Amino acid sequence: MLSEATIIASLKSQSLGFIGDDAAVIPLNQEENYVITKDLLVEDVHFRTRYFSPENLAHKALHVNLSDLAAMGACPKYILLGISIPDSMQTYIEEFLHHFARICLEERVILIGGDTTKSPDKLFISVTAIGMANTTSVKYRHTAKSGDIICVAGAFGEAHLGLVSLERFLTKFEVYQNAYLSPAAKIQEGIWLAAESTITAMMDLSDGLFVDLKKLCDSSAVQGVIALDRLCPSEIFTEACHDLDLDPQEAQLIGGEDYGLLLTVDATEYEALSKKFKQHFGYDLKRIGSITEGEGVCFTDHGTPTDLKLVPFSHFKELI
Amino acid sequence: MLSEATIIASLKSQSLGFIGDDAAVIPLNQEENYVITKDLLVEDVHFRTRYFSPENLAHKALHVNLSDLAAMGACPKYILLGISIPDSMQTYIEEFLHHFARICLEERVILIGGDTTKSPDKLFISVTAIGMANTTSVKYRHTAKSGDIICVAGAFGEAHLGLVSLERFLTKFEVYQNAYLSPAAKIQEGIWLAAESTITAMMDLSDGLFVDLKKLCDSSAVQGVIALDRLCPSEIFTEACHDLDLDPQEAQLIGGEDYGLLLTVDATEYEALSKKFKQHFGYDLKRIGSITEGEGVCFTDHGTPTDLKLVPFSHFKELI
Repeated sequence: MLSEATIIASLKSQSLGFIGDDAAVIPLNQEENYVITKDLLVEDVHFRTRYFSPENLAHKALHVNLSDLAAMGACPKYILLGISIPDSMQTYIEEFLHHFARICLEERVILIGGDTTKSPDKLFISVTAIGMANTTSVKYRHTAKSGDIICVAGAFGEAHLGLVSLERFLTKFEVYQNAYLSPAAKIQEGIWLAAESTITAMMDLSDGLFVDLKKLCDSSAVQGVIALDRLCPSEIFTEACHDLDLDPQEAQLIGGEDYGLLLTVDATEYEALSKKFKQHFGYDLKRIGSITEGEGVCFTDHGTPTDLKLVPFSHFKELI
Repeated sequence: MLSEATIIASLKSQSLGFIGDDAAVIPLNQEENYVITKDLLVEDVHFRTRYFSPENLAHKALHVNLSDLAAMGACPKYILLGISIPDSMQTYIEEFLHHFARICLEERVILIGGDTTKSPDKLFISVTAIGMANTTSVKYRHTAKSGDIICVAGAFGEAHLGLVSLERFLTKFEVYQNAYLSPAAKIQEGIWLAAESTITAMMDLSDGLFVDLKKLCDSSAVQGVIALDRLCPSEIFTEACHDLDLDPQEAQLIGGEDYGLLLTVDATEYEALSKKFKQHFGYDLKRIGSITEGEGVCFTDHGTPTDLKLVPFSHFKELI
């Protein structure tokens, strides 16, 4: 099976400029770079029209791309929209386009072009987003260092509960369903965090905490240690997991599509940064582990190494 | 039916920055702009794997985007590749990726990123191409003027013969099949032509001469007059059309996917420009008509207005 990792490794080896970050950086001027990303959304792989309203889908198609820009610390500027439309979805797409244009306006990004075409069967959406980032503050995945603290800005695992409940035709779990259907890219947090030189690496959480941290660690040639005792799922989250017959810890580690930010911070600066972040955004920059020498991701529980078998979320599997 | 034109009109009305050219222009510095485009290629809408080798498809996926940059007079710089891959096509895609990376190197463009994902059924390719164009010479569709001469750089109708013969499982017509399977974007011509201030408007020929000229004229609020007596199909082209039971003139007017350049030139400067072009590129800048006041596209035959009913090629129809 050709995995996303294999494809990226193959392209990296064949193209000097392919670095495999959330977004690519191209030169603008001495102070700023353009940052550019594209994400695909495929019907029945990334979304189902059964539970995605045209408005939800427009929001998500835009925000998953804005999230990639946020991960690099870029301010979003321009959007290109590509859509391949099945004959049966004309009305759905008219609404989608209306909302997509509206949400672009709300997010102050300019829709500058794209491509539309017929699709034989499924709806395909391809968005390209372009942002601007300060040359000195743009963040990457490959720069984490041994000794750093691993933090997350935003929830992790919540969107997964939404997905699972929607797939099972369940009508409660509305908060989690909204987290899955309409994730909000952490644009302001990304720009703010990028300006902090004590943050050594950053990416967004799209494939789940475990998989994304592994990507960050592989890029940086370091090991990530997740302190399971720091995950601290809330009571209400734990209860929802039990209702859905899910393990809360596993949901937190493998659940994807939350679109929070995963970052590593110089250990000596974490306390000060965390306080400043809380003052600015009103919620915690959650500390979940640390970076050491080595490779991959491992786990501890109150300091004791713990073995954990996880089956990561993958875009190459069917939903659920 | 939601046509491409309706979608573009809807997006134009809702977004100030959406101009509907081959590519969008974003600022770089005082001398240069970035020019950015994205084109989608969908299996069984734009290509069939029955007759597209992975190498053909890689070439075409890149060149249809480079052609959009050429149409604006931009020099290609960066590429992002998005692919949605059905499970059954892993080997095909490995070869596709190998060739795509190789052709990027050959064309001196840097593959800087992208996205890969599973597809439930069909192969879906989305390429974003970024080029650089001189601020004063970038060309648009909306700037043709009454009195201009309409020219084409490159063939028109040939790729259509290739498509028709491939769809009918015919093994001759190799020249036309290659024109369809592996079109070469007119990058050098685009850059050279853009530097000529006597060229008033430019776009690439992707949907066919009639449809593309109509787009250019609608953008410029002028009328295009195609002189049918100037189309002059070659004997060999006419013979191939007869073998395929096609009308040569209709094939020239509605056949898409040639990826030549369609341009309008100040009438007083046409002779000098045409001569310079021939000296530089070794083939003719073909004069096919003129721009007048009015709207849409009409036809003359040796100066006499002629009525012609054409059913344009559309991405919203099935192949053939």
